[in-house]
Amino acid sequence: MSTQALLPHRPLTVAILGASGAVGCELLDLLEQRDFPIKELRLLASKRSSGTIQTWKGSQLTVQETSLESFSGVDLVFASAGGKVSCAWKEVIVSQGALLIDNSSAFRMNSEVPLVVPEVNSHAAHFHKGIIANPNCTTILLSLVLAPLHARIPIKRVVVSTYQSASGAGAMAMEELKSLSSAMLQGKPLSSKVLPYSLAFNLFLHNSDLQDNSYCEEEMKMVNEMKKILEAPELKLTATCVRVPVLRAHSEAVNIEFEQPFEVNDARNIIKNSQGVELIEDFKMNRFPMPIDVTGKDNIAVGRVRQDISHQNCLELWLCGDQIRKGAALNAIQIAEALISPQ
Amino acid sequence: MSTQALLPHRPLTVAILGASGAVGCELLDLLEQRDFPIKELRLLASKRSSGTIQTWKGSQLTVQETSLESFSGVDLVFASAGGKVSCAWKEVIVSQGALLIDNSSAFRMNSEVPLVVPEVNSHAAHFHKGIIANPNCTTILLSLVLAPLHARIPIKRVVVSTYQSASGAGAMAMEELKSLSSAMLQGKPLSSKVLPYSLAFNLFLHNSDLQDNSYCEEEMKMVNEMKKILEAPELKLTATCVRVPVLRAHSEAVNIEFEQPFEVNDARNIIKNSQGVELIEDFKMNRFPMPIDVTGKDNIAVGRVRQDISHQNCLELWLCGDQIRKGAALNAIQIAEALISPQ
Repeated sequence: MSTQALLPHRPLTVAILGASGAVGCELLDLLEQRDFPIKELRLLASKRSSGTIQTWKGSQLTVQETSLESFSGVDLVFASAGGKVSCAWKEVIVSQGALLIDNSSAFRMNSEVPLVVPEVNSHAAHFHKGIIANPNCTTILLSLVLAPLHARIPIKRVVVSTYQSASGAGAMAMEELKSLSSAMLQGKPLSSKVLPYSLAFNLFLHNSDLQDNSYCEEEMKMVNEMKKILEAPELKLTATCVRVPVLRAHSEAVNIEFEQPFEVNDARNIIKNSQGVELIEDFKMNRFPMPIDVTGKDNIAVGRVRQDISHQNCLELWLCGDQIRKGAALNAIQIAEALISPQ
Repeated sequence: MSTQALLPHRPLTVAILGASGAVGCELLDLLEQRDFPIKELRLLASKRSSGTIQTWKGSQLTVQETSLESFSGVDLVFASAGGKVSCAWKEVIVSQGALLIDNSSAFRMNSEVPLVVPEVNSHAAHFHKGIIANPNCTTILLSLVLAPLHARIPIKRVVVSTYQSASGAGAMAMEELKSLSSAMLQGKPLSSKVLPYSLAFNLFLHNSDLQDNSYCEEEMKMVNEMKKILEAPELKLTATCVRVPVLRAHSEAVNIEFEQPFEVNDARNIIKNSQGVELIEDFKMNRFPMPIDVTGKDNIAVGRVRQDISHQNCLELWLCGDQIRKGAALNAIQIAEALISPQ
């Protein structure tokens, strides 16, 4: 671990780039709730979003348009304004000595940029060169289960189907889901403007760009990012990503093939004792995780861990996690917390 | 084929048992739309639902309370009032010489009762002894894809995750989804009464009874019914069934492992040329099946047929089908149509 990689042990000057988005607002809330050591907080956004007022620790903060001067004296930048914005400002941020924790996919697969889920690979964070990438939301949630299992019972292949909320497409997609649902309930269906199709009482395969292999970007993020986070280049993973009419928590149906037969109770105990995971599993009451269980919660919820009846080496489980929180804002803050110098 | 197994070639006397439910109403619509040869149509239900008026081919029909006399002179009964009701009346129906096409799970796994999806195994229908079972909705939809593939490229194992609409739990569950969504949008969330939890902007694992193996009844129906329909006792299948806030169409993310490597275009052509299946697949436009595409449609829609990047023998695809229509009412009527004597 190089000491330059650490954040200084003093109240920090922190900037949030993309402060008016869904993740930006959650960052603001969490920095207050977790009493993150802040001397000065700068809220930055595009010209269009500048001027908005946000309340933080009882003070009114005005969102500023991002400029060259915005990062002067800043120790730490949380960016969640998309890959283009992060790329545009990374040189300025890094050259001024600040650490950029980036929520976009722009740098995730760059071999010089650590891709970090603190419960899984916080060691990787220490090798940053000014930028640390926050993984894709579905990847973060799934890694919290796969990593501890893989460490004890090597995983060969994973088949996952997702049930992804509107929040993954941003605050405007959440508003659109509400307004289109309301219109439909009143018998006046409207067309979507934010998402390509209406999510009101409907669902569709994730609409990120399709690759030549017929997988969409979102699915390939899960495949490639998981290998990097788990440091398991041989891991096989296939994902079908689906957008569902839920507001802000993602769910995943997961089928895990181990290299060898296993005991389902051993797997359950490994998951139960893992950081960032809560077991919601009552077989008698038929009660397992739901999106509403994890909305606004730090931990992901896992349940119905079972032996797959179709393959002796396979385990099945179900998980839900707050997309905006652990899937984005919380994970970014936890990365920063892991890097604050002990003294 | 025994000629006794056939329905006579003349306008039939038909009864619908459970005429006021979601499937019952759809049966009524479809019998009219398809110009099913009917001399007399009797609408039957419990005492509670009797007296309701339904319009059929311009006439007003009153739903009658089911009694011993209800089945006198009847040729054909469509039952969709649940297993208990079907069990209570089956002796009366069969002893009076009528054919019972039953939508419940009561007789599906009985070795003397054919379980039929006409596009897949209409031959089995001819061996009935008075009762033919209509399979579970998710099973019907999936069988339309698995059967033609299995006939050409033997299938070893299937991993499926479902996205099941409220209609599978009946008309009241559909109404509840609408009313709870409306309440939530108005900031006044209400508790569910029909389903165990609110489906409004939420989802949960299918709430049918859990078996000792940690699979719920719905999931085991898919496993066991598929083996019977495909006449493939060695087929391995695992299903995770999930209820989602969609009104009346089910979706399924399907991973199919063949016994051998295959060509994805061969698989696509087999599916494309199968009965009851429409391909909705535009990779350039990123356009694949959605529940709203199939609502009120006879065919299921299949799309994003692709090579699984995690396993050379595996194919992935996505399908949507109208749960009330092909998943229940239409399939039942198609069974009857297949049995009408040619002359």
